[in-house]
Amino acid sequence: MTDMEQPEDIQNQTEETEAAEGSPTVEEQLETALAERDENQNRFLRSQAELDNTRKRHQRELAELRQYAAAPFVQAMLPALDNLKRAVEAAENADNVSDLKQGVEMVAKQILDVFAQHNVKAIEAVGQPFDPNRHEALQQMPSEEYPPMTVIQELEQGFILNDRVVRPSKVIVSSGPAGN
Amino acid sequence: MTDMEQPEDIQNQTEETEAAEGSPTVEEQLETALAERDENQNRFLRSQAELDNTRKRHQRELAELRQYAAAPFVQAMLPALDNLKRAVEAAENADNVSDLKQGVEMVAKQILDVFAQHNVKAIEAVGQPFDPNRHEALQQMPSEEYPPMTVIQELEQGFILNDRVVRPSKVIVSSGPAGN
Repeated sequence: MTDMEQPEDIQNQTEETEAAEGSPTVEEQLETALAERDENQNRFLRSQAELDNTRKRHQRELAELRQYAAAPFVQAMLPALDNLKRAVEAAENADNVSDLKQGVEMVAKQILDVFAQHNVKAIEAVGQPFDPNRHEALQQMPSEEYPPMTVIQELEQGFILNDRVVRPSKVIVSSGPAGN
Repeated sequence: MTDMEQPEDIQNQTEETEAAEGSPTVEEQLETALAERDENQNRFLRSQAELDNTRKRHQRELAELRQYAAAPFVQAMLPALDNLKRAVEAAENADNVSDLKQGVEMVAKQILDVFAQHNVKAIEAVGQPFDPNRHEALQQMPSEEYPPMTVIQELEQGFILNDRVVRPSKVIVSSGPAGN
Protein backbone atom coordinates (compact mmCIF):
# COMPACT_ATOMS: atom_id res chain seq x y z
CA MET A 1 0.00 0.00 0.00
CA THR A 2 2.79 2.42 0.91
CA ASP A 3 4.57 1.27 -2.21
CA MET A 4 1.53 2.22 -4.22
CA GLU A 5 0.79 5.47 -2.46
CA GLN A 6 3.91 7.21 -3.63
CA PRO A 7 3.26 6.78 -7.35
CA GLU A 8 -0.38 7.71 -6.83
CA ASP A 9 0.60 10.90 -5.03
CA ILE A 10 3.01 11.87 -7.79
CA GLN A 11 0.40 10.94 -10.34
CA ASN A 12 -2.07 13.32 -8.69
CA GLN A 13 0.37 16.19 -8.56
CA THR A 14 1.25 15.61 -12.16
CA GLU A 15 -2.38 15.77 -13.17
CA GLU A 16 -2.92 18.97 -11.24
CA THR A 17 -0.13 20.90 -12.87
CA GLU A 18 0.12 19.26 -16.27
CA ALA A 19 -2.41 19.73 -19.02
CA ALA A 20 -1.32 16.90 -21.27
CA GLU A 21 1.17 14.04 -21.58
CA GLY A 22 4.74 15.20 -22.16
CA SER A 23 4.01 18.40 -20.22
CA PRO A 24 6.75 19.98 -18.07
CA THR A 25 7.50 18.77 -14.59
CA VAL A 26 6.94 21.00 -11.57
CA GLU A 27 10.65 21.79 -11.58
CA GLU A 28 10.49 22.79 -15.23
CA GLN A 29 7.41 24.85 -14.55
CA LEU A 30 9.24 26.56 -11.69
CA GLU A 31 12.17 27.29 -13.96
CA THR A 32 9.82 28.76 -16.58
CA ALA A 33 7.92 30.78 -13.98
CA LEU A 34 11.16 32.19 -12.54
CA ALA A 35 12.38 33.13 -16.02
CA GLU A 36 9.04 34.80 -16.79
CA ARG A 37 9.08 36.53 -13.41
CA ASP A 38 12.55 37.93 -14.16
CA GLU A 39 11.61 38.87 -17.72
CA ASN A 40 8.50 40.68 -16.47
CA GLN A 41 10.61 42.45 -13.87
CA ASN A 42 13.00 43.55 -16.62
CA ARG A 43 10.15 44.74 -18.81
CA PHE A 44 8.79 46.68 -15.82
CA LEU A 45 12.19 48.26 -15.15
CA ARG A 46 12.67 49.16 -18.82
CA SER A 47 9.19 50.68 -18.90
CA GLN A 48 9.96 52.71 -15.76
CA ALA A 49 13.22 53.93 -17.31
CA GLU A 50 11.33 54.93 -20.45
CA LEU A 51 8.75 56.73 -18.31
CA ASP A 52 11.56 58.57 -16.57
CA ASN A 53 13.20 59.56 -19.87
CA THR A 54 9.86 60.62 -21.34
CA ARG A 55 9.21 62.90 -18.36
CA LYS A 56 12.67 64.46 -18.58
CA ARG A 57 12.34 65.00 -22.34
CA HIS A 58 8.89 66.49 -21.73
CA GLN A 59 10.33 69.00 -19.25
CA ARG A 60 13.10 69.95 -21.70
CA GLU A 61 10.62 70.39 -24.56
CA LEU A 62 8.30 72.54 -22.44
CA ALA A 63 11.20 74.72 -21.27
CA GLU A 64 12.46 75.13 -24.83
CA LEU A 65 8.99 75.89 -26.15
CA ARG A 66 8.42 78.47 -23.40
CA GLN A 67 11.76 80.08 -24.17
CA TYR A 68 11.14 80.40 -27.91
CA ALA A 69 7.35 80.47 -28.03
CA ALA A 70 7.14 84.19 -28.78
CA ALA A 71 9.58 83.97 -31.74
CA PRO A 72 7.04 83.77 -34.60
CA PHE A 73 5.02 86.59 -33.11
CA VAL A 74 8.10 88.76 -32.56
CA GLN A 75 9.22 88.04 -36.11
CA ALA A 76 5.82 89.08 -37.47
CA MET A 77 5.95 92.31 -35.45
CA LEU A 78 9.31 93.44 -36.84
CA PRO A 79 8.07 94.94 -40.15
CA ALA A 80 5.61 97.11 -38.17
CA LEU A 81 8.50 98.33 -36.04
CA ASP A 82 10.54 99.02 -39.20
CA ASN A 83 7.66 101.00 -40.67
CA LEU A 84 7.26 102.99 -37.47
CA LYS A 85 10.92 103.99 -37.62
CA ARG A 86 10.62 104.81 -41.32
CA ALA A 87 7.57 107.01 -40.68
CA VAL A 88 9.54 108.98 -38.08
CA GLU A 89 12.57 109.27 -40.38
CA ALA A 90 10.37 110.47 -43.24
CA ALA A 91 8.87 113.06 -40.89
CA GLU A 92 12.38 114.44 -40.20
CA ASN A 93 12.51 115.69 -43.75
CA ALA A 94 8.91 116.79 -44.02
CA ASP A 95 6.83 119.16 -41.99
CA ASN A 96 3.60 117.46 -42.99
CA VAL A 97 1.70 116.09 -39.98
CA SER A 98 -0.86 114.31 -42.15
CA ASP A 99 1.78 112.13 -43.87
CA LEU A 100 3.20 111.01 -40.55
CA LYS A 101 -0.30 110.45 -39.17
CA GLN A 102 -1.18 108.33 -42.17
CA GLY A 103 2.05 106.34 -41.79
CA VAL A 104 1.40 105.71 -38.11
CA GLU A 105 -2.21 104.69 -38.75
CA MET A 106 -0.94 102.15 -41.27
CA VAL A 107 1.47 100.76 -38.67
CA ALA A 108 -1.35 100.46 -36.12
CA LYS A 109 -3.39 98.57 -38.73
CA GLN A 110 -0.36 96.40 -39.52
CA ILE A 111 0.01 95.50 -35.84
CA LEU A 112 -3.68 94.52 -35.67
CA ASP A 113 -3.18 92.38 -38.78
CA VAL A 114 -0.26 90.57 -37.10
CA PHE A 115 -2.48 90.08 -34.06
CA ALA A 116 -5.23 88.60 -36.24
CA GLN A 117 -2.75 86.23 -37.92
CA HIS A 118 -1.87 84.96 -34.44
CA ASN A 119 -5.52 84.58 -33.42
CA VAL A 120 -5.51 87.74 -31.34
CA LYS A 121 -8.73 89.66 -31.90
CA ALA A 122 -10.29 92.80 -30.48
CA ILE A 123 -13.19 92.13 -28.12
CA GLU A 124 -16.50 93.53 -29.37
CA ALA A 125 -17.68 96.15 -26.95
CA VAL A 126 -19.98 99.05 -27.92
CA GLY A 127 -23.58 97.84 -28.33
CA GLN A 128 -22.81 94.43 -26.78
CA PRO A 129 -24.43 93.18 -23.56
CA PHE A 130 -21.98 93.77 -20.72
CA ASP A 131 -19.99 90.56 -20.16
CA PRO A 132 -17.85 90.57 -16.99
CA ASN A 133 -15.66 87.86 -18.51
CA ARG A 134 -14.56 90.13 -21.35
CA HIS A 135 -15.49 93.66 -20.27
CA GLU A 136 -14.33 95.67 -17.28
CA ALA A 137 -16.94 98.27 -16.32
CA LEU A 138 -15.25 101.48 -15.18
CA GLN A 139 -18.46 103.49 -15.07
CA GLN A 140 -22.22 103.28 -15.46
CA MET A 141 -24.14 106.04 -17.25
CA PRO A 142 -27.76 106.67 -18.25
CA SER A 143 -28.44 106.11 -21.95
CA GLU A 144 -31.50 106.73 -24.11
CA GLU A 145 -29.96 104.74 -26.92
CA TYR A 146 -28.82 101.53 -25.19
CA PRO A 147 -30.76 99.24 -22.81
CA PRO A 148 -29.38 98.78 -19.27
CA MET A 149 -26.23 96.64 -18.91
CA THR A 150 -25.17 97.35 -22.48
CA VAL A 151 -21.70 98.69 -23.32
CA ILE A 152 -22.09 102.29 -24.50
CA GLN A 153 -18.45 103.35 -24.73
CA GLU A 154 -15.03 101.67 -24.97
CA LEU A 155 -12.26 103.46 -23.06
CA GLU A 156 -9.54 100.87 -23.77
CA GLN A 157 -9.71 98.13 -26.38
CA GLY A 158 -9.65 94.55 -25.08
CA PHE A 159 -8.21 91.49 -26.85
CA ILE A 160 -8.68 87.73 -26.84
CA LEU A 161 -6.16 85.09 -27.92
CA ASN A 162 -8.22 82.17 -29.22
CA ASP A 163 -10.86 81.98 -26.50
CA ARG A 164 -8.71 83.43 -23.70
CA VAL A 165 -8.93 87.07 -22.63
CA VAL A 166 -5.50 88.74 -22.95
CA ARG A 167 -6.89 92.05 -21.69
CA PRO A 168 -10.55 92.88 -21.02
CA SER A 169 -12.13 95.92 -22.69
CA LYS A 170 -12.45 98.88 -20.29
CA VAL A 171 -15.98 100.16 -20.84
CA ILE A 172 -18.82 102.39 -19.74
CA VAL A 173 -22.10 100.53 -19.25
CA SER A 174 -25.65 101.83 -19.72
CA SER A 175 -27.87 102.20 -16.65
CA GLY A 176 -30.90 102.67 -18.91
CA PRO A 177 -32.83 105.87 -19.67
CA ALA A 178 -32.05 108.80 -17.37
CA GLY A 179 -35.73 109.05 -16.34
CA ASN A 180 -35.82 105.57 -14.72
CA MET B 1 17.39 -1.02 -5.43
CA THR B 2 14.38 0.38 -7.30
CA ASP B 3 12.67 0.69 -3.93
CA MET B 4 15.56 2.78 -2.67
CA GLU B 5 16.03 4.88 -5.79
CA GLN B 6 12.72 6.65 -5.49
CA PRO B 7 13.31 8.12 -1.99
CA GLU B 8 16.89 9.04 -2.90
CA ASP B 9 15.72 10.87 -5.97
CA ILE B 10 13.18 12.85 -4.02
CA GLN B 11 15.75 13.55 -1.34
CA ASN B 12 18.11 15.01 -3.96
CA GLN B 13 15.48 17.24 -5.47
CA THR B 14 14.51 18.51 -2.07
CA GLU B 15 18.10 19.41 -1.28
CA GLU B 16 18.52 21.18 -4.58
CA THR B 17 15.57 23.51 -4.19
CA GLU B 18 15.46 24.01 -0.45
CA ALA B 19 18.03 26.07 1.39
CA ALA B 20 17.14 25.01 4.91
CA GLU B 21 14.75 22.89 6.90
CA GLY B 22 11.19 24.29 6.84
CA SER B 23 11.87 25.88 3.45
CA PRO B 24 9.09 25.86 0.82
CA THR B 25 8.51 22.84 -1.38
CA VAL B 26 8.96 23.05 -5.13
CA GLU B 27 5.21 23.43 -5.46
CA GLU B 28 5.21 26.32 -3.01
CA GLN B 29 8.11 27.90 -4.83
CA LEU B 30 6.23 27.52 -8.09
CA GLU B 31 3.19 29.17 -6.53
CA THR B 32 5.34 32.06 -5.27
CA ALA B 33 7.13 32.41 -8.61
CA LEU B 34 3.83 32.45 -10.50
CA ALA B 35 2.44 35.10 -8.14
CA GLU B 36 5.58 37.19 -8.56
CA ARG B 37 5.49 36.68 -12.32
CA ASP B 38 1.88 37.91 -12.41
CA GLU B 39 2.62 40.81 -10.06
CA ASN B 40 5.59 41.87 -12.23
CA GLN B 41 3.39 41.59 -15.31
CA ASN B 42 0.83 43.85 -13.63
CA ARG B 43 3.50 46.35 -12.62
CA PHE B 44 4.74 46.33 -16.21
CA LEU B 45 1.23 46.90 -17.58
CA ARG B 46 0.56 49.71 -15.08
CA SER B 47 3.87 51.32 -16.01
CA GLN B 48 3.00 51.07 -19.71
CA ALA B 49 -0.41 52.64 -19.06
CA GLU B 50 1.28 55.45 -17.15
CA LEU B 51 3.74 55.93 -20.01
CA ASP B 52 0.81 56.13 -22.41
CA ASN B 53 -1.02 58.67 -20.25
CA THR B 54 2.15 60.70 -19.77
CA ARG B 55 2.69 60.88 -23.53
CA LYS B 56 -0.92 61.94 -24.16
CA ARG B 57 -0.77 64.58 -21.41
CA HIS B 58 2.54 65.77 -22.87
CA GLN B 59 0.95 66.25 -26.31
CA ARG B 60 -1.98 68.15 -24.79
CA GLU B 61 0.33 70.41 -22.78
CA LEU B 62 2.52 71.17 -25.80
CA ALA B 63 -0.53 71.96 -27.95
CA GLU B 64 -1.97 74.22 -25.24
CA LEU B 65 1.36 75.94 -24.70
CA ARG B 66 1.77 76.51 -28.45
CA GLN B 67 -1.73 77.93 -28.68
CA TYR B 68 -1.26 80.40 -25.82
CA ALA B 69 2.49 80.89 -25.85
CA ALA B 70 2.32 84.38 -27.39
CA ALA B 71 -0.17 85.64 -24.77
CA PRO B 72 2.30 87.36 -22.39
CA PHE B 73 4.09 89.00 -25.29
CA VAL B 74 0.83 90.17 -26.88
CA GLN B 75 -0.32 91.50 -23.52
CA ALA B 76 2.92 93.43 -23.10
CA MET B 77 2.55 94.91 -26.61
CA LEU B 78 -0.94 96.31 -26.01
CA PRO B 79 0.07 99.52 -24.19
CA ALA B 80 2.37 100.40 -27.11
CA LEU B 81 -0.55 99.91 -29.49
CA ASP B 82 -2.75 102.08 -27.23
CA ASN B 83 -0.12 104.81 -27.22
CA LEU B 84 0.20 104.64 -30.99
CA LYS B 85 -3.54 105.21 -31.34
CA ARG B 86 -3.43 108.01 -28.77
CA ALA B 87 -0.58 109.73 -30.63
CA VAL B 88 -2.63 109.68 -33.83
CA GLU B 89 -5.74 110.93 -32.02
CA ALA B 90 -3.75 113.74 -30.41
CA ALA B 91 -2.42 114.68 -33.87
CA GLU B 92 -6.01 115.08 -35.11
CA ASN B 93 -6.36 118.13 -32.90
CA ALA B 94 -2.89 119.54 -33.44
CA ASP B 95 -0.99 120.51 -36.50
CA ASN B 96 2.35 119.97 -34.81
CA VAL B 97 4.45 117.33 -36.55
CA SER B 98 7.12 117.33 -33.82
CA ASP B 99 4.64 116.30 -31.08
CA LEU B 100 3.42 113.36 -33.13
CA LYS B 101 6.99 112.44 -34.05
CA GLN B 102 7.99 112.47 -30.40
CA GLY B 103 4.97 110.35 -29.50
CA VAL B 104 5.77 107.81 -32.19
CA GLU B 105 9.44 107.67 -31.18
CA MET B 106 8.33 106.91 -27.63
CA VAL B 107 6.14 104.07 -28.90
CA ALA B 108 9.05 102.64 -30.90
CA LYS B 109 11.18 102.76 -27.74
CA GLN B 110 8.34 101.15 -25.76
CA ILE B 111 8.16 98.28 -28.27
CA LEU B 112 11.93 97.73 -27.96
CA ASP B 113 11.53 97.69 -24.15
CA VAL B 114 8.85 95.00 -24.43
CA PHE B 115 11.20 93.07 -26.72
CA ALA B 116 14.00 93.35 -24.17
CA GLN B 117 11.71 92.15 -21.37
CA HIS B 118 11.05 89.06 -23.48
CA ASN B 119 14.76 88.50 -24.20
CA VAL B 120 14.51 89.90 -27.71
CA LYS B 121 17.52 92.08 -28.45
CA ALA B 122 18.82 93.97 -31.45
CA ILE B 123 21.83 92.34 -33.10
CA GLU B 124 24.95 94.50 -33.00
CA ALA B 125 25.97 95.37 -36.50
CA VAL B 126 27.96 98.49 -37.45
CA GLY B 127 31.63 98.05 -36.54
CA GLN B 128 31.23 94.32 -35.83
CA PRO B 129 33.05 91.62 -37.82
CA PHE B 130 30.61 90.25 -40.42
CA ASP B 131 28.94 87.12 -38.98
CA PRO B 132 26.91 85.15 -41.53
CA ASN B 133 24.93 83.59 -38.66
CA ARG B 134 23.56 86.97 -37.58
CA HIS B 135 24.17 89.32 -40.52
CA GLU B 136 22.92 89.16 -44.08
CA ALA B 137 25.30 90.98 -46.44
CA LEU B 138 23.34 92.79 -49.14
CA GLN B 139 26.34 94.65 -50.50
CA GLN B 140 30.12 95.04 -50.17
CA MET B 141 31.73 98.48 -50.33
CA PRO B 142 35.26 99.92 -50.01
CA SER B 143 35.89 101.60 -46.66
CA GLU B 144 38.81 103.64 -45.34
CA GLU B 145 37.38 103.45 -41.83
CA TYR B 146 36.59 99.74 -41.40
CA PRO B 147 38.80 96.69 -42.12
CA PRO B 148 37.57 94.18 -44.72
CA MET B 149 34.65 91.96 -43.68
CA THR B 150 33.44 94.47 -41.14
CA VAL B 151 29.84 95.72 -41.09
CA ILE B 152 29.85 99.39 -42.17
CA GLN B 153 26.13 100.05 -42.45
CA GLU B 154 22.89 98.50 -41.20
CA LEU B 155 20.00 98.61 -43.70
CA GLU B 156 17.54 96.68 -41.56
CA GLN B 157 17.87 95.93 -37.86
CA GLY B 158 18.17 92.26 -36.87
CA PHE B 159 16.99 90.65 -33.64
CA ILE B 160 17.79 87.62 -31.51
CA LEU B 161 15.50 85.85 -29.03
CA ASN B 162 17.78 84.41 -26.36
CA ASP B 163 20.51 82.93 -28.58
CA ARG B 164 18.30 82.31 -31.61
CA VAL B 165 18.20 84.71 -34.59
CA VAL B 166 14.63 85.93 -35.18
CA ARG B 167 15.73 88.04 -38.14
CA PRO B 168 19.32 88.67 -39.29
CA SER B 169 20.58 92.24 -39.70
CA LYS B 170 20.68 93.32 -43.36
CA VAL B 171 24.06 94.99 -43.76
CA ILE B 172 26.70 96.45 -46.03
CA VAL B 173 30.15 94.94 -45.49
CA SER B 174 33.55 96.60 -45.95
CA SER B 175 35.81 95.36 -48.75
CA GLY B 176 38.75 97.29 -47.29
CA PRO B 177 40.35 100.52 -48.56
CA ALA B 178 39.36 101.52 -52.10
CA GLY B 179 43.03 101.47 -53.19
CA ASN B 180 43.44 97.70 -52.61
